[in-house]
Amino acid sequence: MKLLRSSRLLSVAVCFSLWPGVAASAQAQPKHIMGNASEAEIRALLHKWEAAFSARDLDGVMAIYAPGVVTYDVTPPLQYEGKDAYRTDFAEYFANYTGPLSVESRDVHVMASGNLGVVMELQHVSGTLTNGQKTSVWLRVTSVFRKINGNWLDVHDHVSVPVDMHTGQGQIDLVP
Amino acid sequence: MKLLRSSRLLSVAVCFSLWPGVAASAQAQPKHIMGNASEAEIRALLHKWEAAFSARDLDGVMAIYAPGVVTYDVTPPLQYEGKDAYRTDFAEYFANYTGPLSVESRDVHVMASGNLGVVMELQHVSGTLTNGQKTSVWLRVTSVFRKINGNWLDVHDHVSVPVDMHTGQGQIDLVP
Repeated sequence: MKLLRSSRLLSVAVCFSLWPGVAASAQAQPKHIMGNASEAEIRALLHKWEAAFSARDLDGVMAIYAPGVVTYDVTPPLQYEGKDAYRTDFAEYFANYTGPLSVESRDVHVMASGNLGVVMELQHVSGTLTNGQKTSVWLRVTSVFRKINGNWLDVHDHVSVPVDMHTGQGQIDLVP
Repeated sequence: MKLLRSSRLLSVAVCFSLWPGVAASAQAQPKHIMGNASEAEIRALLHKWEAAFSARDLDGVMAIYAPGVVTYDVTPPLQYEGKDAYRTDFAEYFANYTGPLSVESRDVHVMASGNLGVVMELQHVSGTLTNGQKTSVWLRVTSVFRKINGNWLDVHDHVSVPVDMHTGQGQIDLVP
């Protein structure tokens, strides 16, 4: 948090600077439930991820990722390549929070065919920083899964917010 | 362009305000070529999309999208639902440019299984606005395809830039 110089910046920055990108979650009002067994398996995996994320359980979160996961996160760089880099990102994120995190999903789409699966959704994440400040942001999340040796693993997360056309500012206050 | 008030803002804003989101392209240095027939079909579709995009051919671009395509674009809103909304977005984007657009891809991953396909890549897009200004930005692009009635169609685009943690500004000058 040492990089945050003012309360004005803080409200913008905390939501981004602490966010390592997450797998799409599976809870709450799925819009498309296509109902095959693979989709059910992916949903179960996402529920495990959500429980681990809410508890800031780093090993639990990382359990769903493939070694070669490629991530386009809400903050720079353009991409993270590999599980180690993503783990460091999550570890730094979790260290800035106290207590449980909250994850709410909306307009969830789950698709699977053969050994490939995709989840896309809007995801609201909120929590309390170690300094007591509350954070809250709606993200767009796309996650890609492959079934490898019988187990589904996340091979790609893409997590973002839109950027305002007039100011160039990331939009963290949009609500679906 | 009427919303752009200054040259400082212009350099930031043009890249976002005019960007409707695009399908991941398939050219240039693919990192993973997994080689099945579906992946080849998806690459061929992307090459068609690239040619149409470069020529600012709206019908050609829209030909790859499913009616229910869901898009998380680089600009607000959080999501576009349906092909009509996305078509309007592309039409407004193309109208701001003169001459051909350029698309360069890097770290391209193409995956397909059954009737589901995914492309993820870094994508550099540049062009010349009707006022003569050049624009250039590296984007992260994830696209999802389904084979519907024997044809691959794009059902989801996710296009974004990272946001700087200190300033909240979208990062349009990052280079992979």
